[in-house]
Amino acid sequence: MARDPRFDILFEPVTIGPKTARNRFYQVPHCTGMGRGWPRTLAAMRGVKAEGGWAVVNTEYCSIDRTSDDTPYPYARLWDEEDLRANALMVEAVREHGSLAGVELWHGGSSIANLASREPPFDLQSLPARGDPIQSRKLDAQDIRDLRRWHRQAAERAYRAGFDVVYVYATHGYLLHNFLLGPMNDRRDEYGGCLENRARIVAELVEETREATKGECAVAVRFTGSHSPGGFGPEPDEIRDMLAHLGPLADLWDLVCDDYGMEMGHSRFVDEGVHADWLAEARGLVGKPVVSVGRYTTPDAMATLIRRGAVDFIGAARPSIADPFLPNKIEAGEPERIRECIGCNICYAFDTRGAPIRCTQNPTMGEEGRRGWHPERVPARGSDRSILIVGGGPAGLEAACTLGRRGYDVVLAEASNTLGGRAGREARLPGLSTWARVRDYRLEQLTRLSNVETYLESPLDAAAIRDLGHPVVALATGARWRRDGMGRWFHAPVPALEGDEGLYTPDDLMGEGGADILSGGPVAIFDDDQHYMASVLAEMIRKTGRAVTLITTAGRACAWGAHTEEDFRTNARLIELGVEIVPNRAVSAFAGGVVETRCIFTDRAASMAAPNLVLVTSRAPEDGLYHELTAAPDALAEAGIGQVARIGDALAPGLIAHAVHGGHRFAREIDDAVVPILMEAPD
Amino acid sequence: MARDPRFDILFEPVTIGPKTARNRFYQVPHCTGMGRGWPRTLAAMRGVKAEGGWAVVNTEYCSIDRTSDDTPYPYARLWDEEDLRANALMVEAVREHGSLAGVELWHGGSSIANLASREPPFDLQSLPARGDPIQSRKLDAQDIRDLRRWHRQAAERAYRAGFDVVYVYATHGYLLHNFLLGPMNDRRDEYGGCLENRARIVAELVEETREATKGECAVAVRFTGSHSPGGFGPEPDEIRDMLAHLGPLADLWDLVCDDYGMEMGHSRFVDEGVHADWLAEARGLVGKPVVSVGRYTTPDAMATLIRRGAVDFIGAARPSIADPFLPNKIEAGEPERIRECIGCNICYAFDTRGAPIRCTQNPTMGEEGRRGWHPERVPARGSDRSILIVGGGPAGLEAACTLGRRGYDVVLAEASNTLGGRAGREARLPGLSTWARVRDYRLEQLTRLSNVETYLESPLDAAAIRDLGHPVVALATGARWRRDGMGRWFHAPVPALEGDEGLYTPDDLMGEGGADILSGGPVAIFDDDQHYMASVLAEMIRKTGRAVTLITTAGRACAWGAHTEEDFRTNARLIELGVEIVPNRAVSAFAGGVVETRCIFTDRAASMAAPNLVLVTSRAPEDGLYHELTAAPDALAEAGIGQVARIGDALAPGLIAHAVHGGHRFAREIDDAVVPILMEAPD
Repeated sequence: MARDPRFDILFEPVTIGPKTARNRFYQVPHCTGMGRGWPRTLAAMRGVKAEGGWAVVNTEYCSIDRTSDDTPYPYARLWDEEDLRANALMVEAVREHGSLAGVELWHGGSSIANLASREPPFDLQSLPARGDPIQSRKLDAQDIRDLRRWHRQAAERAYRAGFDVVYVYATHGYLLHNFLLGPMNDRRDEYGGCLENRARIVAELVEETREATKGECAVAVRFTGSHSPGGFGPEPDEIRDMLAHLGPLADLWDLVCDDYGMEMGHSRFVDEGVHADWLAEARGLVGKPVVSVGRYTTPDAMATLIRRGAVDFIGAARPSIADPFLPNKIEAGEPERIRECIGCNICYAFDTRGAPIRCTQNPTMGEEGRRGWHPERVPARGSDRSILIVGGGPAGLEAACTLGRRGYDVVLAEASNTLGGRAGREARLPGLSTWARVRDYRLEQLTRLSNVETYLESPLDAAAIRDLGHPVVALATGARWRRDGMGRWFHAPVPALEGDEGLYTPDDLMGEGGADILSGGPVAIFDDDQHYMASVLAEMIRKTGRAVTLITTAGRACAWGAHTEEDFRTNARLIELGVEIVPNRAVSAFAGGVVETRCIFTDRAASMAAPNLVLVTSRAPEDGLYHELTAAPDALAEAGIGQVARIGDALAPGLIAHAVHGGHRFAREIDDAVVPILMEAPD
Repeated sequence: MARDPRFDILFEPVTIGPKTARNRFYQVPHCTGMGRGWPRTLAAMRGVKAEGGWAVVNTEYCSIDRTSDDTPYPYARLWDEEDLRANALMVEAVREHGSLAGVELWHGGSSIANLASREPPFDLQSLPARGDPIQSRKLDAQDIRDLRRWHRQAAERAYRAGFDVVYVYATHGYLLHNFLLGPMNDRRDEYGGCLENRARIVAELVEETREATKGECAVAVRFTGSHSPGGFGPEPDEIRDMLAHLGPLADLWDLVCDDYGMEMGHSRFVDEGVHADWLAEARGLVGKPVVSVGRYTTPDAMATLIRRGAVDFIGAARPSIADPFLPNKIEAGEPERIRECIGCNICYAFDTRGAPIRCTQNPTMGEEGRRGWHPERVPARGSDRSILIVGGGPAGLEAACTLGRRGYDVVLAEASNTLGGRAGREARLPGLSTWARVRDYRLEQLTRLSNVETYLESPLDAAAIRDLGHPVVALATGARWRRDGMGRWFHAPVPALEGDEGLYTPDDLMGEGGADILSGGPVAIFDDDQHYMASVLAEMIRKTGRAVTLITTAGRACAWGAHTEEDFRTNARLIELGVEIVPNRAVSAFAGGVVETRCIFTDRAASMAAPNLVLVTSRAPEDGLYHELTAAPDALAEAGIGQVARIGDALAPGLIAHAVHGGHRFAREIDDAVVPILMEAPD
């Protein structure tokens, strides 16, 4: 098919300084949890983005000196020749597909603690590092000279590594950004005081980057383009003046809003394109090509944005992770095939955990090089064995689609009257509607896979599975939330929590009745899971008017949401709804409408009256069928069944991302000898 | 000098299976934050331990398979030949000094999340990983066969790498440990049920390790030797039965108590040797050599422990980090020269931050290889410049001692009537008495350094410094706690917090008057520092009878203490003392005896009556003298002063560990061109 002419505008080339991007799809710098630690894995991933049609593909933040050492996060680096070679791998992979490779030079200032280099951090003020008990030293004139020298040297290395675009990174609270801020910058020399002085370092670095790259690279500036109350950036008037003042110097402006929880907003709280209002004005001020993000996944919204004059490039981090082939699919006239980002921020979460990137929607993300997984191409089937998949949730659907694409004959049997499993059930909870995209992307594929037969309302028992006699059986039967308290805090069932009337789990509340199954009185929720489930249930229940108390073994609700930019907004929302949050306690007993809690530090008991208790602790795999089948190997053999596997939550309950990855891996490896994956990094 | 005959017993050789340790000093396996990521740096560090007299030097936990991947922590590995070569570096460094090298083979089970390998963790039960939203799968018979095969292969690699001691690691909540536990192990085959069955995997692995190492390596077992209420191990009777049952199989027993907060106890809560009572009985049960730790730093306590028959080896992690030459100093009859561990757990903290180890007392820890710093030897001076050090706190003392050892003429001027600075001041706070060892170790050195002149009660102003005319001036003038609220939460001074009567900082409370300077009414403490200071002040003040409320921007008191095994006991102690802890709020205003706080999520305000407010936010360097001196370069030149430096908190306020490292580095590098350090790991 040919592309829709309405989207032609997205495929116009755009000139940025000495370079020309072949279209308007622009992968902004984004973290990967790989950086200098996994250069080959990283290069393969960035190369796939270029192959998929992104005209510009950037690195993550790339440190210019050992005074900007963000250990333990696997950041990129350009400190020396070895780093140059590591980055050149990515450049080569990107340019092979006719795209431009960009690098975001970076100095972290007081944000980072230099845990490995053990250099004292420095910044405009002496401030505590974000995560550690070390403050920055206050920089002096020599430091500014050093900074300029390091930046220039890194730009020279970037040039020699073959990059097309080199960034000056002056936002997000890092060192250059803090020069811009009046309250932070009390220098009395030419770098402090008036706006021109505070912006001087940016102007100098742009100029010096241009020199270091012999005028052959485009020089981009990443900058704060809008102000929000409580945001981290300069005041609105100052932003305008700075954009006007600095605008002509750079070849490209990569503009961010000054609230990271908005820019990287979780889909529970932030919609697609929510921070676009100010872009047209900012673009007018700089008078140069502008790129900005907005988690856009549909060509209509993108084309509209270009036509409004808001930007020149559609910037993307997350949508390019969920679908590296998004541009090519639009170009091929198949936008319905886009694997749409769900905004869950699992990609970001694992970088903040110091580990390589992954994606809920795209199981191949991060596996392009080390496992050889391409997001769009799969190897032909390795045998003519037919496969029965029991369960149509995220793992079962992904396995069915991938096996189907490989050419296997697949039967997918789902017990309920709908496909999607937990992706569908959770999508009905407050804020989680995008979860349905996990289901819908795969349902769309199934319409084109005639070798995958799907049966709804088809619960299978062991005998039925044996009767069907498919040589391979994959049990994707999911998991159920435990109703015995076992989880992070209690590593065994808690008899005092079992079986009492008024005890519920998330599965109960995700059923038809929703919160109506609860009695009218107060509701206690035990959040020992520490991720989103307890919070979204609290929100749902509170909205029915019931009093809700969320008791958690962590120090706040949704504590793991610190890794997904979800924790602050979650706690704020719950507090604003009137949910009481009780941190650092475990629910230890429940009987007769009384919930007993214990302090996790002292074991001191307290109690509260609540006729309803919702346990959100951990899940038990639904693996009864697996054990029943494998307990009778002779019967299996007689039925011609050679392989029985569990995939997804039925094996190891985890994120939806884990289930999709598990289903995909099963489908990839079903007939292969297991090949050790590349583990580039030591850790 | 010769060693004291009372300590001869410590230098007896001990036979462990086919190997003989040359004395009783035994560095148990301990984390370093290096592992497979920094093999050369690690080898140099372990080699220095052997050089310093430790007869056995072990690795950290060493993963046997990619299903035990503890990313982002830089763990050791023996997965393949490349890992073998990395570990062989350490073996070579240790054996060069006549010591035995040991390796602790490890599988993490459900504790870890396999963030890089992306394998589902497995364990006896499906349990959440410690830090991430993924549960283990429940292992089956094939997994046990795999586990045995991986362990055997890793043992073979250990043998070929040259290790003398190979561990079976069956405690600390990792996989092998969980086989032992009745409530965790519900297997119905030969690995579950009765005690012999649950212990079977350990017996098998010991046997298979012996085979894989051709009977040439000593096989050690790390095991839980005692039970405490709420501990993680088996019940007391079962421990006894297991020790008796398994005892004869291994060549060496490395016994731990079953409360990690006790075993790795912070000195605020746990004294030297506190968990030794049960050792003699356990040793009798196993009938083999036993090693155990107890943070012993003096030869008397060590010799007593041996004579009591409690252990055969003095196990040490932390004391061997603080002083790798502890054995040699006892042997040389100079136990007063031991650099005694202060039990602050900063060593452990940085491993849990995913970064290479460091030590408060020993600035060379982790720098042996990459910077070439030896803990006992320093290079001769590089010039005949004399050096004035202003300030006798941790940085100043360390710089003076190291410069003195290098042969420089040093003048150390201290304004107060005592040396030690914050190490002395903080040592008077509850639980911090060991901090004084930072001072005392250096005072002992000064008694032997005739080229270091020390002057007390000698405040110097810029004119006086110029008059003295030393070519090098190091300002180690420390830092003061801010009284304007600036810190982690507020990045600029908060006018509403400044200057009101009743406002205090830790410096005020560490003065002569202590808590008596407060009025008698309630006391609010704002803990935005998130480490120990606010908590120890709360304890001190509460013990005077005043009502105390600790308000923190974190989710609990002493939140960073999660990295030092300090947070749970801190919160428990405060709660038990009756201190009220208010998490997730910032103190935003103080006037007229009313403290205003704001929710960090919603910015909602609340207020409480308190005539006293203690701000524990961040510190401001005391660098006025530095700026005064450097503002008049001509006067400096005229005075013959060629170099003015800030060191320690006067440069960048941090941990005492940072100050000592900074002082040491200054003394090492004063006349050197700066040489880039080795940065082995990508991150």
